[in-house]
Amino acid sequence: MGELVSCELCDQSGGDIVYRNESFRVVLIDDPSYPGFCRVIWNAHVKEMTDLTEPERTSMMRAVWWVEEAIREVMMPDKVNIASFGNMTPHLHWHVIPRYKNDVHFPNPIWGEKKNSPALLDIARCQEQILNLRRAILRRFDQS
Amino acid sequence: MGELVSCELCDQSGGDIVYRNESFRVVLIDDPSYPGFCRVIWNAHVKEMTDLTEPERTSMMRAVWWVEEAIREVMMPDKVNIASFGNMTPHLHWHVIPRYKNDVHFPNPIWGEKKNSPALLDIARCQEQILNLRRAILRRFDQS
Repeated sequence: MGELVSCELCDQSGGDIVYRNESFRVVLIDDPSYPGFCRVIWNAHVKEMTDLTEPERTSMMRAVWWVEEAIREVMMPDKVNIASFGNMTPHLHWHVIPRYKNDVHFPNPIWGEKKNSPALLDIARCQEQILNLRRAILRRFDQS
Repeated sequence: MGELVSCELCDQSGGDIVYRNESFRVVLIDDPSYPGFCRVIWNAHVKEMTDLTEPERTSMMRAVWWVEEAIREVMMPDKVNIASFGNMTPHLHWHVIPRYKNDVHFPNPIWGEKKNSPALLDIARCQEQILNLRRAILRRFDQS
Protein backbone atom coordinates (compact mmCIF):
# COMPACT_ATOMS: atom_id res chain seq x y z
CA MET A 1 0.00 0.00 0.00
CA GLY A 2 1.15 3.51 -0.75
CA GLU A 3 2.02 6.05 1.93
CA LEU A 4 -0.84 8.35 2.83
CA VAL A 5 0.49 11.67 4.09
CA SER A 6 -1.75 14.59 4.81
CA CYS A 7 -0.35 18.06 4.13
CA GLU A 8 -1.46 20.99 6.26
CA LEU A 9 -0.98 23.44 3.37
CA CYS A 10 -3.20 21.27 1.15
CA ASP A 11 -5.82 20.85 3.87
CA GLN A 12 -5.82 24.37 5.34
CA SER A 13 -5.31 27.96 4.21
CA GLY A 14 -2.14 28.26 6.33
CA GLY A 15 -3.11 31.69 7.70
CA ASP A 16 -5.47 34.60 7.29
CA ILE A 17 -5.94 35.00 3.52
CA VAL A 18 -5.09 38.45 2.13
CA TYR A 19 -5.09 37.55 -1.56
CA ARG A 20 -5.68 34.37 -3.50
CA ASN A 21 -5.61 33.48 -7.18
CA GLU A 22 -5.56 30.19 -9.10
CA SER A 23 -1.85 29.64 -8.47
CA PHE A 24 -1.03 30.92 -4.99
CA ARG A 25 -2.28 32.75 -1.92
CA VAL A 26 -0.84 35.39 0.39
CA VAL A 27 -1.64 34.89 4.06
CA LEU A 28 -0.96 36.76 7.29
CA ILE A 29 0.52 34.72 10.14
CA ASP A 30 -0.82 35.24 13.65
CA ASP A 31 2.46 35.52 15.56
CA PRO A 32 2.46 38.16 18.32
CA SER A 33 6.27 38.38 18.14
CA TYR A 34 6.15 39.08 14.40
CA PRO A 35 3.20 41.25 13.38
CA GLY A 36 3.15 41.59 9.59
CA PHE A 37 4.67 38.12 9.07
CA CYS A 38 3.29 36.92 5.70
CA ARG A 39 3.53 33.73 3.70
CA VAL A 40 3.13 33.24 -0.03
CA ILE A 41 1.87 29.68 -0.52
CA TRP A 42 1.67 27.84 -3.83
CA ASN A 43 -1.79 26.25 -4.01
CA ALA A 44 -0.75 22.93 -5.58
CA HIS A 45 1.36 20.46 -3.63
CA VAL A 46 4.75 21.22 -5.20
CA LYS A 47 8.00 20.67 -3.33
CA GLU A 48 10.70 22.92 -4.78
CA MET A 49 10.82 26.19 -6.76
CA THR A 50 12.59 24.32 -9.58
CA ASP A 51 9.55 22.02 -9.85
CA LEU A 52 7.61 25.04 -11.14
CA THR A 53 7.74 26.20 -14.74
CA GLU A 54 9.61 29.46 -15.34
CA PRO A 55 6.42 31.55 -15.70
CA GLU A 56 5.06 30.00 -12.49
CA ARG A 57 8.30 30.81 -10.64
CA THR A 58 8.21 34.38 -11.94
CA SER A 59 4.60 34.88 -10.84
CA MET A 60 5.27 33.49 -7.38
CA MET A 61 8.39 35.59 -6.84
CA ARG A 62 6.63 38.72 -8.11
CA ALA A 63 4.11 38.11 -5.31
CA VAL A 64 6.96 37.72 -2.80
CA TRP A 65 8.48 41.06 -3.90
CA TRP A 66 5.09 42.79 -3.69
CA VAL A 67 4.64 41.49 -0.17
CA GLU A 68 8.17 42.66 0.68
CA GLU A 69 7.43 46.11 -0.78
CA ALA A 70 4.18 46.37 1.15
CA ILE A 71 5.87 45.25 4.39
CA ARG A 72 8.62 47.84 3.93
CA GLU A 73 6.10 50.58 3.16
CA VAL A 74 3.78 49.88 6.08
CA MET A 75 5.83 48.12 8.76
CA MET A 76 9.12 49.99 8.22
CA PRO A 77 11.25 47.06 9.40
CA ASP A 78 15.03 47.24 9.89
CA LYS A 79 15.34 44.21 7.58
CA VAL A 80 13.13 41.83 5.65
CA ASN A 81 13.80 38.10 5.94
CA ILE A 82 12.71 35.76 3.16
CA ALA A 83 12.90 31.98 3.30
CA SER A 84 11.59 28.79 1.73
CA PHE A 85 12.32 25.64 3.75
CA GLY A 86 9.50 23.09 3.73
CA ASN A 87 11.42 20.46 5.68
CA MET A 88 8.36 19.61 7.75
CA THR A 89 5.76 20.64 5.17
CA PRO A 90 7.26 20.04 1.71
CA HIS A 91 4.63 22.21 0.04
CA LEU A 92 6.14 25.32 -1.54
CA HIS A 93 5.74 28.42 0.64
CA TRP A 94 7.77 31.57 1.25
CA HIS A 95 8.09 33.28 4.62
CA VAL A 96 8.30 37.08 4.35
CA ILE A 97 9.10 38.54 7.76
CA PRO A 98 9.60 42.13 8.93
CA ARG A 99 12.53 42.19 11.36
CA TYR A 100 13.49 44.83 13.93
CA LYS A 101 16.68 45.31 15.90
CA ASN A 102 14.72 44.83 19.15
CA ASP A 103 12.65 41.82 18.07
CA VAL A 104 12.85 38.53 19.99
CA HIS A 105 15.46 36.78 17.82
CA PHE A 106 17.38 39.65 16.17
CA PRO A 107 19.98 39.34 14.67
CA ASN A 108 19.26 35.61 14.50
CA PRO A 109 16.73 34.18 12.08
CA ILE A 110 13.38 33.70 13.85
CA TRP A 111 14.08 29.95 13.95
CA GLY A 112 17.29 30.56 15.93
CA GLU A 113 18.09 31.31 19.54
CA LYS A 114 16.13 34.07 21.26
CA LYS A 115 18.16 37.21 21.92
CA ASN A 116 15.80 39.84 23.35
CA SER A 117 12.75 40.03 25.61
CA PRO A 118 9.49 40.56 23.74
CA ALA A 119 8.66 44.25 23.30
CA LEU A 120 5.34 45.50 24.63
CA LEU A 121 2.82 45.33 21.78
CA ASP A 122 0.55 48.32 21.16
CA ILE A 123 -2.48 46.27 20.06
CA ALA A 124 -4.45 49.18 18.57
CA ARG A 125 -1.47 50.44 16.55
CA CYS A 126 -0.68 46.89 15.50
CA GLN A 127 -4.22 46.23 14.25
CA GLU A 128 -4.14 49.44 12.25
CA GLN A 129 -0.78 48.49 10.72
CA ILE A 130 -2.07 45.05 9.73
CA LEU A 131 -5.09 46.64 8.07
CA ASN A 132 -2.79 49.00 6.18
CA LEU A 133 -0.54 46.10 5.24
CA ARG A 134 -3.50 44.18 3.78
CA ARG A 135 -4.43 47.24 1.73
CA ALA A 136 -0.83 47.79 0.58
CA ILE A 137 -0.56 44.16 -0.55
CA LEU A 138 -3.94 44.14 -2.31
CA ARG A 139 -3.22 47.45 -4.07
CA ARG A 140 -0.21 45.84 -5.75
CA PHE A 141 -2.19 42.82 -6.97
CA ASP A 142 -5.09 45.00 -8.09
CA GLN A 143 -2.77 47.10 -10.23
CA SER A 144 -1.39 44.07 -12.07
CA MET B 1 30.66 62.24 11.78
CA GLY B 2 29.03 59.49 9.73
CA GLU B 3 29.02 55.86 10.80
CA LEU B 4 31.79 53.80 9.24
CA VAL B 5 30.72 50.17 9.00
CA SER B 6 32.79 47.59 7.20
CA CYS B 7 30.89 44.84 5.39
CA GLU B 8 32.39 41.37 5.11
CA LEU B 9 30.62 40.73 1.80
CA CYS B 10 32.07 43.95 0.37
CA ASP B 11 35.55 43.18 1.72
CA GLN B 12 35.70 39.43 1.05
CA SER B 13 34.43 36.90 -1.48
CA GLY B 14 32.27 35.22 1.17
CA GLY B 15 33.28 31.71 0.10
CA ASP B 16 35.00 29.71 -2.60
CA ILE B 17 34.00 31.35 -5.89
CA VAL B 18 32.32 29.03 -8.42
CA TYR B 19 31.05 31.71 -10.80
CA ARG B 20 31.23 35.48 -10.89
CA ASN B 21 29.91 38.12 -13.24
CA GLU B 22 29.51 41.90 -13.02
CA SER B 23 26.36 41.64 -10.86
CA PHE B 24 26.76 38.68 -8.53
CA ARG B 25 28.84 35.68 -7.56
CA VAL B 26 28.09 32.09 -6.61
CA VAL B 27 30.25 30.70 -3.81
CA LEU B 28 30.60 27.38 -2.02
CA ILE B 29 30.51 27.49 1.77
CA ASP B 30 33.00 25.38 3.73
CA ASP B 31 30.65 23.81 6.29
CA PRO B 32 31.40 20.14 7.06
CA SER B 33 27.78 19.65 8.23
CA TYR B 34 26.44 20.97 4.91
CA PRO B 35 28.55 19.97 1.90
CA GLY B 36 27.16 21.64 -1.21
CA PHE B 37 25.93 24.70 0.73
CA CYS B 38 26.10 27.60 -1.77
CA ARG B 39 25.47 31.32 -1.58
CA VAL B 40 24.49 33.70 -4.35
CA ILE B 41 25.86 37.11 -3.36
CA TRP B 42 25.03 40.40 -5.07
CA ASN B 43 28.33 42.22 -5.65
CA ALA B 44 27.15 45.74 -4.77
CA HIS B 45 26.18 46.61 -1.21
CA VAL B 46 22.40 46.42 -1.56
CA LYS B 47 20.15 45.55 1.37
CA GLU B 48 16.88 44.11 0.09
CA MET B 49 15.68 42.34 -3.08
CA THR B 50 13.21 45.18 -3.65
CA ASP B 51 16.16 47.61 -3.80
CA LEU B 52 17.15 45.92 -7.06
CA THR B 53 15.58 46.77 -10.41
CA GLU B 54 13.28 44.11 -11.84
CA PRO B 55 15.86 42.85 -14.40
CA GLU B 56 18.47 42.67 -11.60
CA ARG B 57 16.08 40.68 -9.41
CA THR B 58 15.31 38.32 -12.27
CA SER B 59 18.98 37.71 -13.02
CA MET B 60 19.80 37.04 -9.37
CA MET B 61 16.89 34.64 -8.90
CA ARG B 62 17.72 32.83 -12.14
CA ALA B 63 21.13 32.18 -10.58
CA VAL B 64 19.47 30.90 -7.39
CA TRP B 65 17.31 28.48 -9.39
CA TRP B 66 20.33 27.25 -11.38
CA VAL B 67 22.17 26.60 -8.16
CA GLU B 68 19.11 24.78 -6.79
CA GLU B 69 18.88 22.68 -9.98
CA ALA B 70 22.57 21.81 -9.82
CA ILE B 71 22.33 20.92 -6.11
CA ARG B 72 19.33 18.65 -6.78
CA GLU B 73 21.09 16.99 -9.74
CA VAL B 74 24.38 16.34 -7.97
CA MET B 75 23.68 16.22 -4.23
CA MET B 76 20.25 14.56 -4.39
CA PRO B 77 19.01 16.22 -1.17
CA ASP B 78 15.70 15.40 0.52
CA LYS B 79 14.88 19.12 0.40
CA VAL B 80 16.47 22.40 -0.69
CA ASN B 81 16.35 25.35 1.72
CA ILE B 82 16.58 28.89 0.34
CA ALA B 83 16.86 32.01 2.48
CA SER B 84 17.83 35.67 2.42
CA PHE B 85 18.24 37.23 5.89
CA GLY B 86 21.12 39.72 6.13
CA ASN B 87 20.35 40.73 9.71
CA MET B 88 24.03 40.71 10.61
CA THR B 89 25.36 41.45 7.13
CA PRO B 90 22.75 43.59 5.32
CA HIS B 91 24.32 42.89 1.93
CA LEU B 92 22.02 40.89 -0.33
CA HIS B 93 22.87 37.16 -0.38
CA TRP B 94 20.89 33.96 -0.79
CA HIS B 95 21.65 30.75 1.05
CA VAL B 96 20.94 27.62 -1.03
CA ILE B 97 21.32 24.54 1.15
CA PRO B 98 20.91 20.83 0.40
CA ARG B 99 19.08 19.21 3.33
CA TYR B 100 18.86 15.56 4.30
CA LYS B 101 16.61 13.79 6.76
CA ASN B 102 19.66 12.72 8.79
CA ASP B 103 21.50 16.06 8.76
CA VAL B 104 22.38 17.84 12.00
CA HIS B 105 19.36 20.17 12.19
CA PHE B 106 16.66 18.36 10.16
CA PRO B 107 13.75 19.13 10.11
CA ASN B 108 14.73 22.48 11.63
CA PRO B 109 16.34 25.22 9.56
CA ILE B 110 20.14 25.06 9.94
CA TRP B 111 19.93 28.13 12.22
CA GLY B 112 17.64 26.25 14.61
CA GLU B 113 18.16 23.66 17.31
CA LYS B 114 20.30 20.63 16.50
CA LYS B 115 18.33 17.42 16.14
CA ASN B 116 20.74 14.69 15.02
CA SER B 117 24.38 13.68 15.53
CA PRO B 118 26.62 14.55 12.60
CA ALA B 119 26.83 11.73 10.05
CA LEU B 120 30.25 10.33 9.20
CA LEU B 121 31.56 12.22 6.16
CA ASP B 122 33.09 10.23 3.30
CA ILE B 123 35.69 12.86 2.38
CA ALA B 124 36.64 11.39 -1.00
CA ARG B 125 33.02 11.05 -2.10
CA CYS B 126 32.28 14.52 -0.80
CA GLN B 127 35.16 16.09 -2.74
CA GLU B 128 34.00 14.38 -5.91
CA GLN B 129 30.44 15.61 -5.35
CA ILE B 130 31.63 19.19 -4.83
CA LEU B 131 33.65 19.02 -8.05
CA ASN B 132 30.56 17.73 -9.88
CA LEU B 133 28.46 20.45 -8.27
CA ARG B 134 30.86 23.15 -9.52
CA ARG B 135 30.62 21.70 -13.02
CA ALA B 136 26.82 21.44 -12.85
CA ILE B 137 26.53 25.09 -11.76
CA LEU B 138 29.01 26.36 -14.36
CA ARG B 139 27.33 24.38 -17.15
CA ARG B 140 24.11 26.30 -16.50
CA PHE B 141 25.80 29.71 -16.63
CA ASP B 142 27.83 28.73 -19.72
CA GLN B 143 24.66 27.79 -21.58
CA SER B 144 23.06 31.17 -20.91
